[in-house]
Amino acid sequence: IKLWGGRFVGDTDPIMEMFNASIAYDKRMWDADIRGSKAYVKALEKAELVTTEEMENILHGMDQIHDEWSKGVFEVKPGDEDIHTANERRLKELIGEPAGKLHTGRSRNDQVVTDMRLWLRDAISTLKRNALQLITTMVERAAVEMDVLFPGYTHMQRAQPIRWSHWLLSHAVALSRDLERLHEIRRRVNVLPLGRYTHTMFWIDCVFGHVELAFDDISINSMDATGQRDFVAEFLFWASLCLTHLSKMAEDLMLYSTKEFSFLVLSDAYSTGSSLMPQKKNADSLELIRSKAGRVFGRCAGFLMTLKGLPSTYNKDLQEDKEAMFDCYDTVHAVLQVTTGVLSTIKINRGVMEAALSPDMLATDLAYYLVRKGVPFREAHGISGKAVFLAESKSILLNQLTVEELRTASPLFSSDVSAVWDYSSSVEQYSAPGGTAKSSVAAQVEHLRTWLKKQAW
Amino acid sequence: IKLWGGRFVGDTDPIMEMFNASIAYDKRMWDADIRGSKAYVKALEKAELVTTEEMENILHGMDQIHDEWSKGVFEVKPGDEDIHTANERRLKELIGEPAGKLHTGRSRNDQVVTDMRLWLRDAISTLKRNALQLITTMVERAAVEMDVLFPGYTHMQRAQPIRWSHWLLSHAVALSRDLERLHEIRRRVNVLPLGRYTHTMFWIDCVFGHVELAFDDISINSMDATGQRDFVAEFLFWASLCLTHLSKMAEDLMLYSTKEFSFLVLSDAYSTGSSLMPQKKNADSLELIRSKAGRVFGRCAGFLMTLKGLPSTYNKDLQEDKEAMFDCYDTVHAVLQVTTGVLSTIKINRGVMEAALSPDMLATDLAYYLVRKGVPFREAHGISGKAVFLAESKSILLNQLTVEELRTASPLFSSDVSAVWDYSSSVEQYSAPGGTAKSSVAAQVEHLRTWLKKQAW
Amino acid sequence: IKLWGGRFVGDTDPIMEMFNASIAYDKRMWDADIRGSKAYVKALEKAELVTTEEMENILHGMDQIHDEWSKGVFEVKPGDEDIHTANERRLKELIGEPAGKLHTGRSRNDQVVTDMRLWLRDAISTLKRNALQLITTMVERAAVEMDVLFPGYTHMQRAQPIRWSHWLLSHAVALSRDLERLHEIRRRVNVLPLGRYTHTMFWIDCVFGHVELAFDDISINSMDATGQRDFVAEFLFWASLCLTHLSKMAEDLMLYSTKEFSFLVLSDAYSTGSSLMPQKKNADSLELIRSKAGRVFGRCAGFLMTLKGLPSTYNKDLQEDKEAMFDCYDTVHAVLQVTTGVLSTIKINRGVMEAALSPDMLATDLAYYLVRKGVPFREAHGISGKAVFLAESKSILLNQLTVEELRTASPLFSSDVSAVWDYSSSVEQYSAPGGTAKSSVAAQVEHLRTWLKKQAW
Amino acid sequence: IKLWGGRFVGDTDPIMEMFNASIAYDKRMWDADIRGSKAYVKALEKAELVTTEEMENILHGMDQIHDEWSKGVFEVKPGDEDIHTANERRLKELIGEPAGKLHTGRSRNDQVVTDMRLWLRDAISTLKRNALQLITTMVERAAVEMDVLFPGYTHMQRAQPIRWSHWLLSHAVALSRDLERLHEIRRRVNVLPLGRYTHTMFWIDCVFGHVELAFDDISINSMDATGQRDFVAEFLFWASLCLTHLSKMAEDLMLYSTKEFSFLVLSDAYSTGSSLMPQKKNADSLELIRSKAGRVFGRCAGFLMTLKGLPSTYNKDLQEDKEAMFDCYDTVHAVLQVTTGVLSTIKINRGVMEAALSPDMLATDLAYYLVRKGVPFREAHGISGKAVFLAESKSILLNQLTVEELRTASPLFSSDVSAVWDYSSSVEQYSAPGGTAKSSVAAQVEHLRTWLKKQAW
Repeated sequence: IKLWGGRFVGDTDPIMEMFNASIAYDKRMWDADIRGSKAYVKALEKAELVTTEEMENILHGMDQIHDEWSKGVFEVKPGDEDIHTANERRLKELIGEPAGKLHTGRSRNDQVVTDMRLWLRDAISTLKRNALQLITTMVERAAVEMDVLFPGYTHMQRAQPIRWSHWLLSHAVALSRDLERLHEIRRRVNVLPLGRYTHTMFWIDCVFGHVELAFDDISINSMDATGQRDFVAEFLFWASLCLTHLSKMAEDLMLYSTKEFSFLVLSDAYSTGSSLMPQKKNADSLELIRSKAGRVFGRCAGFLMTLKGLPSTYNKDLQEDKEAMFDCYDTVHAVLQVTTGVLSTIKINRGVMEAALSPDMLATDLAYYLVRKGVPFREAHGISGKAVFLAESKSILLNQLTVEELRTASPLFSSDVSAVWDYSSSVEQYSAPGGTAKSSVAAQVEHLRTWLKKQAW
Repeated sequence: IKLWGGRFVGDTDPIMEMFNASIAYDKRMWDADIRGSKAYVKALEKAELVTTEEMENILHGMDQIHDEWSKGVFEVKPGDEDIHTANERRLKELIGEPAGKLHTGRSRNDQVVTDMRLWLRDAISTLKRNALQLITTMVERAAVEMDVLFPGYTHMQRAQPIRWSHWLLSHAVALSRDLERLHEIRRRVNVLPLGRYTHTMFWIDCVFGHVELAFDDISINSMDATGQRDFVAEFLFWASLCLTHLSKMAEDLMLYSTKEFSFLVLSDAYSTGSSLMPQKKNADSLELIRSKAGRVFGRCAGFLMTLKGLPSTYNKDLQEDKEAMFDCYDTVHAVLQVTTGVLSTIKINRGVMEAALSPDMLATDLAYYLVRKGVPFREAHGISGKAVFLAESKSILLNQLTVEELRTASPLFSSDVSAVWDYSSSVEQYSAPGGTAKSSVAAQVEHLRTWLKKQAW
Repeated sequence: IKLWGGRFVGDTDPIMEMFNASIAYDKRMWDADIRGSKAYVKALEKAELVTTEEMENILHGMDQIHDEWSKGVFEVKPGDEDIHTANERRLKELIGEPAGKLHTGRSRNDQVVTDMRLWLRDAISTLKRNALQLITTMVERAAVEMDVLFPGYTHMQRAQPIRWSHWLLSHAVALSRDLERLHEIRRRVNVLPLGRYTHTMFWIDCVFGHVELAFDDISINSMDATGQRDFVAEFLFWASLCLTHLSKMAEDLMLYSTKEFSFLVLSDAYSTGSSLMPQKKNADSLELIRSKAGRVFGRCAGFLMTLKGLPSTYNKDLQEDKEAMFDCYDTVHAVLQVTTGVLSTIKINRGVMEAALSPDMLATDLAYYLVRKGVPFREAHGISGKAVFLAESKSILLNQLTVEELRTASPLFSSDVSAVWDYSSSVEQYSAPGGTAKSSVAAQVEHLRTWLKKQAW
Repeated sequence: IKLWGGRFVGDTDPIMEMFNASIAYDKRMWDADIRGSKAYVKALEKAELVTTEEMENILHGMDQIHDEWSKGVFEVKPGDEDIHTANERRLKELIGEPAGKLHTGRSRNDQVVTDMRLWLRDAISTLKRNALQLITTMVERAAVEMDVLFPGYTHMQRAQPIRWSHWLLSHAVALSRDLERLHEIRRRVNVLPLGRYTHTMFWIDCVFGHVELAFDDISINSMDATGQRDFVAEFLFWASLCLTHLSKMAEDLMLYSTKEFSFLVLSDAYSTGSSLMPQKKNADSLELIRSKAGRVFGRCAGFLMTLKGLPSTYNKDLQEDKEAMFDCYDTVHAVLQVTTGVLSTIKINRGVMEAALSPDMLATDLAYYLVRKGVPFREAHGISGKAVFLAESKSILLNQLTVEELRTASPLFSSDVSAVWDYSSSVEQYSAPGGTAKSSVAAQVEHLRTWLKKQAW
């Protein structure tokens, strides 16, 4: 059965048939398609375009089709070029001619975009749950390991002592922004598209369909409704930015789990070995997480390029939307779960982390010692730099410089400088909001716990 | 002056100097940089890190620097690697040592992200105004030319008669979604980043800076605050999707202004001629609009790729953020204005548009004629298809088939079928929300006028 | 069986297992994997690392596995994480312990890249054949329809009369460059990678493997050999540029097949209808061709982003290479065949094409008329422009201006100007290489026929 | 002066003027534009379209314009929308009317693509020199430091001992492939494009222009010649892949120069400090190198997206080609030089590198010890894995296990196992082509030296 078969007299090239068909992947939306059609036939009945009996038959047939898909026994036949055709073909087999009434007043262009919106709305809910679980893991781990100090890095170079929990929360905060964005996208996804062929002659109760399918809103302009795929593009970019965040976290964790850093050990459950080198333990999970940002962004890039310069309304080019959407969903779905697994089971080497702190990481504190004595910061920074250079020249640690040696850089140094060399009190200085002092980190934990509780959408 | 010059003893490669310097483009943020520093010094004074007199000196110096930039006389010197260094260098020249106190408790990593957020917030306001003007143009033009009919296209093939105003509004609606997204992004841009070195020892009144600079919120985690560029990435993607919309509209308009369609004539102000062919009038404005979607998306793609797999916090790689942001702003700024100009001045050929309607575009209406007589839509579609084929075989128009000829396709046709062949009444059928009936289009105009009035952010 | 299972004591997360496994797609390389292993075991035997008997057993076992895959009865089992593991596991089931010797001196990192190179080499040969067939179709069609004239367009506006065959050849020439590039890539694909663990202690006859598998060359540095994926990246970009060319041709054809242009009619075999509008005939094949440029470029973008900033040698991130490669191959393979089908069956409307020529398209010829009388081109261009404007003002065609009217623009016009208004002689002026004169187009046809004959690689 | 000004009567929007103009960046091709015009006028003279005297005047005028550009005194005026217009306008000022003859038989569409090809050909020569210098640095450094051993990594985990020179050469080999590709691209760049308006009526000696400008070939089809930008797209992708290679090397070097690895120290000339932390020394050069892969790929992505779906021949969209080309050239030009600087001046810590080798990195050697005693590799790998696990459980090094302890894993171990624990002899095993044995690395050095000598194109 070809739905548009009435007029054509030539044959179709089999390669063209395959090239054109989307059933191989859009069958994944079978449930959304059935839900959409069930709501639609109710509207048709209300508009007296089908009788109550026909409606009952169609609903019953649709339930049976649902059952077949659920059990994995639905049989896709040659000619079922997409999920809509497949379901309608099957409906006709089950209930006969009245099946032909289901398509009254809607085109497949309307139907496919309705299906996609229903499907993606549900997919977003799943991703939300995955992300909340990951953020919760991060926040609770930060609460438990709040007191562990280790080097903060900028430019991959040791900068200043920070809390490990502060690091964990920095990634949790990024993900919380991702969730905010996802929430906004959901609003734009959850809109009933009303196609250009919807008309009052066959009055269709939009509000009805709207309520039935739990859409939040209806579309404003029918040409826009069937021809736009903003909600897909937005979702693809959302996935890209979210996984870019996780690629960053994965990169940190990979660094930290090198032999050279040795801050962390991944659970065996998230590592693999080498088929050649018996001693190897590879952080494959982290490498895969890192790699997927590229994959999903590729989908986003490809789809935007496909959209560029298309004329208005539906063009077959839009068929590229579904595989991209499915692939990004599947990828983010897996990545979020694996990341949660990794972060739940990773073991930190507190001793190694703290041993990695060194006095030169307090050079800024040394400058502030001078600032407190009235030296402008820029000058104090210069003096502290000289002290660092002096220690390096002597191959000693910064805190091993004597007060006399320090005085060669500035006469303001006196014996109280020794108080500078304490990592624990150093971090406590940063008690402003967002800082690495215990109070600040604890406040971030509380902030996020409260935020997590509110995520009931 | 190199701000980090205290310790280094080697020389710098001049190519490296240029490669490293950002002053060539980040000087564009001179105003934001000065505003940020003025608020910052007030906070330092409140925290007793500078005296009131020093603050006054710094404020006064900053005003003078502002003046120099405004007048175009600020002189960038060798060694001014970025706008922060340039302004601080100049401040020192103007007021001496106290200038060195301005940097207390903040790093350039904090400063640059504060500057960018201030700059982008203002840029977004400008783009909002540009976009509102464009949408207003579309809506008001739709109101004036509401009654013009022309062919609606899908797959670049004539589909059904629609209103020209319906087409205009379909693009206005897409842009209104862009503005909604821009509004959401603005909220995430307008956040005061508190760097990791902010601390209470030198208490800085965040709320104060917050109020002073009119930020809506403060950042939650200092590592995230200086290391994330989500707001840039989001803006770049926003620009990409917005210009993809306009590439689509430009493509339509280019089609409509070909000799073959002849629906529209562009104003000379937005056309150019050929240096070779005297008769040519090219829609260069539309081609440029179409092309820019690629340009801005390239910036987005490049920046995401740069971000991928970076370790946490600041890495010099982030320096790619600014040129991308500026270029996307400039491009969207120009495109929105040019598009407004094009749409304000384009002339439509109503006669040609209406003459392009043909009876075969009412084949769906013919099918619905049968649906009203009880034929299931799918079957009616097949019958109508046969009628189209019959007319084609006879090389006549669909409405030239006699009732007898139509009856060969279905016995249900009778003389009342002649009522089908009226374009004006055809469009009036589509009076559901979003449809192409006059009442529906008028409702869309009102909806958008109301929406426009609310855009006061 | 996990090949690296000796040491691990923890459990693996099932989501991680799926996330990590590549068998779902890399099984497609089963034949290349078997060919590689058969060559490898022969080298091991020569190096006396397996006995002749063991070699025979392994070869025999491999043939049996080949047979199972061919017949579709090979059973993938849980734990077969990739094609290499699956084949080795099966070999062990078939021949027992000696199977364990096959992995001597090679890691999966070597194996996978060898398999990919073998697979892609064959894939490239197929694509070459597809592309040659398409180019041949274009060239032979150009030869047959050499005399058809129609408007040449720039900026989507009618420019000057050209031959339809000239248009066809312009796309054939672009594809011939694609084939040249593909040939260059093939040379870089067809290189035997020698992994870092290859060593002489277990002497492996590289040259032997080289000959056995018909590689053209061997790799230079083992770290580079297993860690680089240039050949994949190059192939992905090749596919992107090739399909960008076809997107351009598809766009032209879509324009030409609109109702408004009506230059062409697609065969029904490459069109589809509308499920709603009985009269519609959509150029779905062309839309799909146009869309695929985005898809494949997305793969290229994604893979490059994944590669960016990876450390040297093998990282699991590289696993993204295979799906991208397969998808681009499949897409280009289908697109080339469908395009060949479209171009073989399209019908041109010669009458409509020629009727679309109009005198204003000869305005440049009018300028050259003056150039021949000594007027500098720039001035002649201005005069011709005035004539165009004059005709437009009078609403007449350019060739309907009287000599007197033309003389208002330049006194040099005389009655011999009438010779300008001939489309056939106009095109004959362009007889330089690459031009649209009959002799030039015929020369292009010959050039490409000769070139096609040489494509024996 | 607007070259197409004859016919237009409306005014131009100033924003549109700026949007349309390319002079701001295409003036960079002033030299190519002049060279092209000088060759062109010689052809015109040969074709008797200008007199010898006019030719002399034009050549003289062009030389004067060249002089003005060289000295930086050429004045761009309002209305000079591109370099071609600017030069022609100036020529007219200098020599009067005959300037108007220069445009005979060519359009700006031809001219711009000729200019770009000339410009890019020269740019490629510069990049070739830059790249050869970098490869030479790598190869010669490898020759000098051939004997330094350090850990080879896969998955960012220590794998097996390798030579530092082996690592250096792995990157040199990747760059040598880049140069091969660049050479291929150069051939396709260096083609004289013959536009569609070239004709014999005004016979233009293509071969002459060809020889004059040192092009290698002429284009085959005029529509393709002016409408294709393959050479730009190829160059942009070339830049992307080349910088992706360097991003990989930069990532390695950044890892190696962390405090934790401490294998290397960057020269101060390629590092910068922190404006806040006096002790910091950041590898800014490496971070910038890493970041630029994103930038240039963004240009490539943007341009491909712009090209997608364009109709044939020239469309104004193509104007995006030049900024992309210039930016990629400038970026690669700087990156190659900075990378050469970094690699020339970096200091390695041989002691630290060698101290990072550990017995577990010889676990594969331990397995091969058993292979030599007849154990199938897969089994030997398992036994060695058990030994590693045993050592870990006992918290001792792998080579500290007694023979008795090893025997619990396999009875085949005996006292000769002690010979395994020697890093120097371990690396010598890998003497196959491309291996890390001294002989292999020396052969790679020789191979590349020979290759470098051949790069005379």
